[in-house]
Amino acid sequence: MSKINNFGIIGGDKRQVAMAESIAADGYNVYVSGIDKINFYNGVVKCNISELLSKSEYIILPLPATKDNVTINAPYSNEKIYLNNQLAKELKEKIMFCGMKSKLIKTSKYWNEALIYDYFERSEFSIKNAIPTAEGAIEIAMREYPSTIHGSNCLVAGFGRIGKVLSNMLKGMGANVTVSARKNEDLTWIELAGYKSIKTSEIYKTKNYDIIFNTIPSMIFDAHVLALSAESSLVIDLASLPGGVDFEAAQRLGIKSIQALSLPGKVAPKAAGEIIKTTIYNIIEEEFE
Amino acid sequence: MSKINNFGIIGGDKRQVAMAESIAADGYNVYVSGIDKINFYNGVVKCNISELLSKSEYIILPLPATKDNVTINAPYSNEKIYLNNQLAKELKEKIMFCGMKSKLIKTSKYWNEALIYDYFERSEFSIKNAIPTAEGAIEIAMREYPSTIHGSNCLVAGFGRIGKVLSNMLKGMGANVTVSARKNEDLTWIELAGYKSIKTSEIYKTKNYDIIFNTIPSMIFDAHVLALSAESSLVIDLASLPGGVDFEAAQRLGIKSIQALSLPGKVAPKAAGEIIKTTIYNIIEEEFE
Amino acid sequence: MSKINNFGIIGGDKRQVAMAESIAADGYNVYVSGIDKINFYNGVVKCNISELLSKSEYIILPLPATKDNVTINAPYSNEKIYLNNQLAKELKEKIMFCGMKSKLIKTSKYWNEALIYDYFERSEFSIKNAIPTAEGAIEIAMREYPSTIHGSNCLVAGFGRIGKVLSNMLKGMGANVTVSARKNEDLTWIELAGYKSIKTSEIYKTKNYDIIFNTIPSMIFDAHVLALSAESSLVIDLASLPGGVDFEAAQRLGIKSIQALSLPGKVAPKAAGEIIKTTIYNIIEEEFE
Amino acid sequence: MSKINNFGIIGGDKRQVAMAESIAADGYNVYVSGIDKINFYNGVVKCNISELLSKSEYIILPLPATKDNVTINAPYSNEKIYLNNQLAKELKEKIMFCGMKSKLIKTSKYWNEALIYDYFERSEFSIKNAIPTAEGAIEIAMREYPSTIHGSNCLVAGFGRIGKVLSNMLKGMGANVTVSARKNEDLTWIELAGYKSIKTSEIYKTKNYDIIFNTIPSMIFDAHVLALSAESSLVIDLASLPGGVDFEAAQRLGIKSIQALSLPGKVAPKAAGEIIKTTIYNIIEEEFE
Repeated sequence: MSKINNFGIIGGDKRQVAMAESIAADGYNVYVSGIDKINFYNGVVKCNISELLSKSEYIILPLPATKDNVTINAPYSNEKIYLNNQLAKELKEKIMFCGMKSKLIKTSKYWNEALIYDYFERSEFSIKNAIPTAEGAIEIAMREYPSTIHGSNCLVAGFGRIGKVLSNMLKGMGANVTVSARKNEDLTWIELAGYKSIKTSEIYKTKNYDIIFNTIPSMIFDAHVLALSAESSLVIDLASLPGGVDFEAAQRLGIKSIQALSLPGKVAPKAAGEIIKTTIYNIIEEEFE
Repeated sequence: MSKINNFGIIGGDKRQVAMAESIAADGYNVYVSGIDKINFYNGVVKCNISELLSKSEYIILPLPATKDNVTINAPYSNEKIYLNNQLAKELKEKIMFCGMKSKLIKTSKYWNEALIYDYFERSEFSIKNAIPTAEGAIEIAMREYPSTIHGSNCLVAGFGRIGKVLSNMLKGMGANVTVSARKNEDLTWIELAGYKSIKTSEIYKTKNYDIIFNTIPSMIFDAHVLALSAESSLVIDLASLPGGVDFEAAQRLGIKSIQALSLPGKVAPKAAGEIIKTTIYNIIEEEFE
Repeated sequence: MSKINNFGIIGGDKRQVAMAESIAADGYNVYVSGIDKINFYNGVVKCNISELLSKSEYIILPLPATKDNVTINAPYSNEKIYLNNQLAKELKEKIMFCGMKSKLIKTSKYWNEALIYDYFERSEFSIKNAIPTAEGAIEIAMREYPSTIHGSNCLVAGFGRIGKVLSNMLKGMGANVTVSARKNEDLTWIELAGYKSIKTSEIYKTKNYDIIFNTIPSMIFDAHVLALSAESSLVIDLASLPGGVDFEAAQRLGIKSIQALSLPGKVAPKAAGEIIKTTIYNIIEEEFE
Repeated sequence: MSKINNFGIIGGDKRQVAMAESIAADGYNVYVSGIDKINFYNGVVKCNISELLSKSEYIILPLPATKDNVTINAPYSNEKIYLNNQLAKELKEKIMFCGMKSKLIKTSKYWNEALIYDYFERSEFSIKNAIPTAEGAIEIAMREYPSTIHGSNCLVAGFGRIGKVLSNMLKGMGANVTVSARKNEDLTWIELAGYKSIKTSEIYKTKNYDIIFNTIPSMIFDAHVLALSAESSLVIDLASLPGGVDFEAAQRLGIKSIQALSLPGKVAPKAAGEIIKTTIYNIIEEEFE
């Protein structure tokens, strides 16, 4: 990797904590600000922002960089760190990495002058994140479903990244897996992989699923589809907001349904931190070496 | 199945509840005593013991039949049901099924005159129970391990029923699986199945496992082996009591270790109830048809 | 399916033979011309072309429709069937299906007025054809490689349709599989699927493969790469012409290499015929129902 | 391994050839007699028997050691090597390894004084040999069956070593696999592994198999069972002689059936040679180290 050896990490949750320790374990100098409440081991150095800026060439912001559009997303910080023009002016001299850049750049005009790489946009990030998401979904299913995944009838709605990884894991555990997709090409791949296939638009025609996992970010499971297909199912919605399940209708129908958001950071912060680190390393390798 | 159509279920936990409903759903008459606190659906009839005895030819006792050697194991009963000579005399006229018969027969001399089948002793019971046990173990691992099962290094100690099912599921989720066994024949099968193999007596020579699952009911993971092999591992002991992990030593060494007992009834009572039902049906088919 | 019930099949090899019998087994009337040397069962009716045209609404031509650009590809015919203006004028009144339409339409200007669907262009055709292609490749490997696929080190160059199916089957048989791709996104998927990954451009850096399967239709395995990576390998080229292996260089280097073309029709004509049938049924369902 | 460094190999087929080269590649001295027609590389030394005996401590005889009960099984030898008292007297001073010892010891009374290990009797030998046997069976199926293994309906009769490995590989290729067994315990395992299960005694009740693999060495597929279950099947008999298929009845019924014997040596001599070598190394490690 590049000759630059100093990483500054500002804010973040358990994923950034794990990432900081993992980068330090690779032999780099790691400085952190805004994660005060955590005790690091492995040689990660806590310091204030000006010290961090004076020592680091690479700056890593959280995912998302901000939640309130005013301060850095820093749940383990004792103080708020404001994303104002002053900070932006200092940071724009650095090589920056953040998640969901579009939120960050609204906080100051100076970000437009900065070199900011969005690791959240990278394909290896979203593909690999499908793993902790799928495992988180299975963990929820195990906890809530009173029988075993092995032998259960599962419907996975959608054959994108999460759908692919999740259906493969469910099959690996011995479930009977049906997968839905819109495109004929995907339906052919679904069958080749050994799953039953169904058109997403025809989900309402089938039922008797023990567990339904939705991965499609649009309203697939409305009251009508829930009533026809999910009567005796556990429904887990993995799609990002606004999601794909009508939870009010589910409640009315007596269908147990769970909205599962941001699983990687919750169920596997260490894995999620590794994924962010690897993505940043890849960007550095492509751009600076 | 046989022309006998009436099952009486006395006592039991959520597994017996699920079993009662499942037998009723198969079209049989089901009478229960000693599960007062549960609301059944599906036509299961609650009644007192004398009514149950007058109506049922097949009697099913819990697993284990008794925990205190005096009363029936009946956590959902409002009253105690005593396993005394009087009950034994009445029951011995019936065809009985129970789990862990050896505990039951100590409670009255009249049991020796009864026809009692122990479903817990049957191979299909213990093989199928390996599934909820393995899933329960994976659920614990998911909850406690901060990274993902996919890509983790797992050691499964023992290649009996649980070891076989568990290692297969872990591989199906994408873990790197090492399995230990004593016998050369098992070691060959382990390699053929695509796992790394290690002699159980040489576990202490390897390390760097993220998660260690013990399935062997003897002291494999003593202080010495823990110190050499499990320093940075999560240790989950699935072996029946007294287990195979020195938990005190683990605590001293700062190794996170968990004793996981009776997983099927806890994590998947519905599946566990189905397994008991199927086993009893098999006995009936073999003996009475 | 549509109310049209009559299929006319003109020319073709064993795939068309299997397809004819399979369509007839579905309950349709099937008329064939130009497959004289085959004895059909299942109610397939042999007749001359004018009778076939008078009775059939759907006309199916072979894959490819022509090999010599003058006559229909009809290896089991006693006579040549010329693709001249006269035939084209008659056929253009029908609904036609053929493979590699671009070759057909050069033989007469009247084809431009015809409704011709090219089943060879459809995604479900090429995805499903990956299965007999992969199995044919494995059959060749089994025959030529003196050890077992299980435990062998295999390189699959390319992660397109054939690469995906082939690597999955090899893994299913217990091989150690490395897959190459150009794109980072594919490399991530390759790793997630449990294979080793390598950039296609860096294949020359690795060796010790027992069997190398090329699926990429450009010159990947030139003399240089063969010398560095394939010295002790069996090399099987599955890419369509001109292929991706320098066979002269391989011979010079003493490397056993095999060009495997058109495997589906050779190793699994029945499966290949089913795939053509299903593809044509899909077109009919989409266009005419 | 032991300090003894010299192996003498007398007679044998391509498996012994591969084994000789593999032992030499491990750094040992290897002397061969009775394989005259083969050109060895890798430092294997051809010599006559007296030279071989003077230089080797470990002597390896073929599998089986003799076919005619008079001479060593040596298809690549220019001369016959007689298993007479003279040879036995010389060999009994050595540490000997052979396959099917019971045949050998009938040729001279002096064998009773010799230390002879039978590698054919060892569990790792027979378990590992299931791999080339299964692959050979699949190769035959691929060659003879006109469709693909993927998607085909396969019956594997018997869940012993070969049955286990074969059904796993077939599933790994995408076949729909039914496995038969006699014991309830095996039937439970078959279901757990994701196959359909059937009692061996009830095979006659099912049909519609594309391919039937028999692994049971007793007459399972007699005329009656063939007529009921195999009418449209390809039947491959893997059981050792006298086999488990009535081939005359199959011919009468027009059922394509194939007797596949000694597959490892035929389809994968290199793998088969490695298996013999590894088994002999294991014996040496257990007995002499």
